[in-house]
Amino acid sequence: MAKDEVILLDFWPSMFGMRLRIALAEKEVNYKYREEDLRNKSPLLLQMNPIHKKTPVLIHNGKPICESIIGVEYIDEVWKDKAPLLPSDPYEKAQVRFWADYIKKKVYDSSRKIWATKGEEHEAGKKDFIEVLKVLEGTLGEKPYFGGDNFGFVDISLIGFYCWFYAYETYGNFSIETECPKFVAWGKRCMQRDSVAKSLPDQHKILEYVKVRRQEFGLE
Amino acid sequence: MAKDEVILLDFWPSMFGMRLRIALAEKEVNYKYREEDLRNKSPLLLQMNPIHKKTPVLIHNGKPICESIIGVEYIDEVWKDKAPLLPSDPYEKAQVRFWADYIKKKVYDSSRKIWATKGEEHEAGKKDFIEVLKVLEGTLGEKPYFGGDNFGFVDISLIGFYCWFYAYETYGNFSIETECPKFVAWGKRCMQRDSVAKSLPDQHKILEYVKVRRQEFGLE
Repeated sequence: MAKDEVILLDFWPSMFGMRLRIALAEKEVNYKYREEDLRNKSPLLLQMNPIHKKTPVLIHNGKPICESIIGVEYIDEVWKDKAPLLPSDPYEKAQVRFWADYIKKKVYDSSRKIWATKGEEHEAGKKDFIEVLKVLEGTLGEKPYFGGDNFGFVDISLIGFYCWFYAYETYGNFSIETECPKFVAWGKRCMQRDSVAKSLPDQHKILEYVKVRRQEFGLE
Repeated sequence: MAKDEVILLDFWPSMFGMRLRIALAEKEVNYKYREEDLRNKSPLLLQMNPIHKKTPVLIHNGKPICESIIGVEYIDEVWKDKAPLLPSDPYEKAQVRFWADYIKKKVYDSSRKIWATKGEEHEAGKKDFIEVLKVLEGTLGEKPYFGGDNFGFVDISLIGFYCWFYAYETYGNFSIETECPKFVAWGKRCMQRDSVAKSLPDQHKILEYVKVRRQEFGLE
């Protein structure tokens, strides 16, 4: 493994990029982080992800892996001797894939509406987001992590949103902790892990980023 | 494996259900097919897929696997000694997952707009659908299957749409074969496989189904 060259094309506020940062940190893989300017994408990004032209892209020994969830599975399969992220049992694996897919379908779209839209769409986003979080809180139950006793694939798929909570609360005018206390306790627990703490930006920095985007959208 | 009880909760025109039918046929797994009435969903469906309440659901020895793509991976992992559907190499696996994800994101939404909407939305759907098919045709290249020489995961993810082509062409007023001849040749090739031929309904039956739906939508 000494010759492995790993590059991550990423954008710092991206909760999708955070998934790969955390997975690589869990596996203790050294990599080069390259920040992308999404308004002036690098030739490397366009070459490595010609279909979607989006970050994050993991590049392993010159070969691209696109889509963050697929990248996390790839990392788990390649660096399999350390910190397993997915269960080995096929049924358990299908269950964690189900929840990662649920997160992919539901969390981003609803959360984005809270800060990037107004009126009915904003209200619908807020309502949907809380409902989705309550479903996730229900499946978490009394377990410390979605993966049970161990931090795993579903936790990695979801925790990136946690550093955006302050922005959602600011523009949604609600308290996520009041709505979903166990969910927030889970987020705090994850933040105690080095792999997570060093991969997530500060919540105040996210809020500043969101403010700028809202100005661009004519919302402020 | 003699004691395995496999049930498929499905709806006959569903291209998502077709994925599971084909995967089970490739693996020569015996199963009970249960047709669902989507307007009066069975208590078993609601119990087995309480989150999405959708078909298809694969039930293996009493335990549900929801989401068709996840189900195909599950089938490949459980019945691994016969007809491998995903490659074993992590990089190749990431690539087939990328294309299955692309199909999931792009094909259904655009194709549905062709027959279920009118005006600008209809035209946009038609344009998007052809663009998506051309991208897929590009990645197929000169290979017989998306899996190369072997029929595999990407082929299974995509072929269910083929029996809907006649309906898309009827309401889109275009020839898919003219636009994407290699893609249609691939479809015909897949249809020569027993696993596919016996899992896909007749295209005329799909057209009749679409006509009824259009009447319900006030489009006819």
